[in-house]
Amino acid sequence: MIYFDNAATTYPKPREVINEINKAFTLYGANPGRSGHDMSMNTALAVYSARETLNTFFDGYGSEYVSFTSNCTGSLNMAIKGILESGDHVIISSLEHNSVLRPVIKLAEQKKITFSVFAVTHNEEETLFNLKKEIKDNTKLIITTAVSNVFGDILPLENIGRIARENNILFMVDGAQGAGVIPIKMKQMGINCLCIPGHKSLYGPMGIGAILHDGCIKETIIEGGTGTESFNFNQPLAFPERLESGTLNVPAVCGLKKGVEITSSYGVNNIFGDESELMELMFNELSGIRNIILYKNEYNRKTQAPLIAFNVKNMHSEEVSAFLNSNSVAVRGGFHCSPLAHKTYGTELIGAVRVSPSRFNTKKDVKYVINLLQKIAKNKNV
Amino acid sequence: MIYFDNAATTYPKPREVINEINKAFTLYGANPGRSGHDMSMNTALAVYSARETLNTFFDGYGSEYVSFTSNCTGSLNMAIKGILESGDHVIISSLEHNSVLRPVIKLAEQKKITFSVFAVTHNEEETLFNLKKEIKDNTKLIITTAVSNVFGDILPLENIGRIARENNILFMVDGAQGAGVIPIKMKQMGINCLCIPGHKSLYGPMGIGAILHDGCIKETIIEGGTGTESFNFNQPLAFPERLESGTLNVPAVCGLKKGVEITSSYGVNNIFGDESELMELMFNELSGIRNIILYKNEYNRKTQAPLIAFNVKNMHSEEVSAFLNSNSVAVRGGFHCSPLAHKTYGTELIGAVRVSPSRFNTKKDVKYVINLLQKIAKNKNV
Repeated sequence: MIYFDNAATTYPKPREVINEINKAFTLYGANPGRSGHDMSMNTALAVYSARETLNTFFDGYGSEYVSFTSNCTGSLNMAIKGILESGDHVIISSLEHNSVLRPVIKLAEQKKITFSVFAVTHNEEETLFNLKKEIKDNTKLIITTAVSNVFGDILPLENIGRIARENNILFMVDGAQGAGVIPIKMKQMGINCLCIPGHKSLYGPMGIGAILHDGCIKETIIEGGTGTESFNFNQPLAFPERLESGTLNVPAVCGLKKGVEITSSYGVNNIFGDESELMELMFNELSGIRNIILYKNEYNRKTQAPLIAFNVKNMHSEEVSAFLNSNSVAVRGGFHCSPLAHKTYGTELIGAVRVSPSRFNTKKDVKYVINLLQKIAKNKNV
Repeated sequence: MIYFDNAATTYPKPREVINEINKAFTLYGANPGRSGHDMSMNTALAVYSARETLNTFFDGYGSEYVSFTSNCTGSLNMAIKGILESGDHVIISSLEHNSVLRPVIKLAEQKKITFSVFAVTHNEEETLFNLKKEIKDNTKLIITTAVSNVFGDILPLENIGRIARENNILFMVDGAQGAGVIPIKMKQMGINCLCIPGHKSLYGPMGIGAILHDGCIKETIIEGGTGTESFNFNQPLAFPERLESGTLNVPAVCGLKKGVEITSSYGVNNIFGDESELMELMFNELSGIRNIILYKNEYNRKTQAPLIAFNVKNMHSEEVSAFLNSNSVAVRGGFHCSPLAHKTYGTELIGAVRVSPSRFNTKKDVKYVINLLQKIAKNKNV
């Protein structure tokens, strides 16, 4: 199988990550922060060390402001509902995933908050202008994805962060597709809160995510045992425990740490370069195939993360992905939990075929897929 | 190391469980329910099969009413906040963990609900009388743990379920310490909602929990991409997706399934019998040691799950556990995230030393610990 569905989850995971997870089952098999015996303490140290790794990698506000969650959606819900208070206004981009859209719309339907959507276009100045237009007196938060999960657009994080700071507004980034592929530096980019998954381009396992923040998260949506302040009937105020109730996913924390180390050691810019080379090749080849619809005029590495969405004329995207699957190629067709993004690009009816590489894909993989698409698109003359 | 901290998390995990997790990294490495390619579909089937396993094991209301979460605390928060509405009254037991207590107290402090606590005593009739006393017209829910995480008391689930049903009240069980150790049969016991961790006596890994319910959960605290109804701006109503936003922890789901299969195949009653034999031996030996404080008059298998809490006169529980640790025995001392339970047993000041076995402990382990405790207690004459 040629696996090009890495934006859903990277596959395979690096051998080092799986080894680390297995090591954790043996060495860090106790519950961290609960008991005082050696294995529990060693487990807690391993978890703390993973906080440090993430904090350094994302230029965060300190290891105590790195809390582990179950996935990026969990992180986003905890962060959005932990920051927004009654009467607040929030601005989100037109490329947000349902993991941002659904919690925001729920709060709005409960009449707790109001929200605006700013349109992301191919012109950065226009995008920033669209954003600024939506700022109101009660705007507390701007939320944008780092990278569109459907079309790969990179958002101008640093400039959005500057606008947020100038207007005394908090800036939250959904790193689901960006973390590990483009550099995300919180302090440098003025990001107050970053939500990430472990299992995508950081090459960790499923079942782990994180919230990195600067202390802007006040409220909790999940309370419970934290191993601290047992006799406090309220959720402790101290981070990271405040956002970590119940037993942590220790093996996955260890696996994620290793994944970040690997990513960091090879270099995000190198990963971006390698994957962009593959996707640029694919884009250029696809451009030459009649009946293929691409949603960008050119492949621009400045604004394009290495993933491509396309369609074949007169075919539903699910048909195309099923055809590829029958030829041992795994991609995602249909809709991608991002209704606004599909509206932005006019693909609400047929969805889009998404090809998303990892560092394990090769030019040979790209050529194999191109060859298949040439065959199918040829039969779709219109 | 002799590991007697299995109530915090079981260690080691069975080899079969770890093998299954590793198999999942290879065979079920795609995102289930997102894409249509073969590996994604096979992964979805593996997850569905785990739902069936849990549903059967706990005599649940159907596989679609088994949702996977990150841990038991996550399950409890989703269930409590998903059931209770403004104006409701809830009754909880005096042995509840902070994973129940903190969310309930938070809702009460927000003036959304009111709650009462019923005292669990060593007399079942008295316990049930205490419960019935607290029922009000607006009581919607009774929540009890299956087993006290500190003192091992087994709650009379079937009779509580009967009282709940007779009064048209929902019954939720915190299975953190009970699942896999005592039989929990939802339909038979009249349990509407059961929250479980994967990593304790079901021998799964950390990072996975589940909610089993009969459809009584209406509201959500986490919304996001479910892979379904992409263009619905609201969280889909259908279970299990309604309670499963974002990517599932597939390897842990597979590991938990294997853990439940192992438990089921050996038999919960056999596990209970084996572990009770160890704890009864320990209880009887401890009873004979001067200066050891036990919190039960006798070891009664009808009301006692296989774990023991004790103290040594004139010592803090943390001192005792540190002494055991220095002799390569892992137990938990101090407080156990259960302030009400410590108040019930009068151990708010010194906490308690908890010895909790798994199926991997032996009589030799028990004797080793007894021998150590004899030494330390002898020096504590009062």
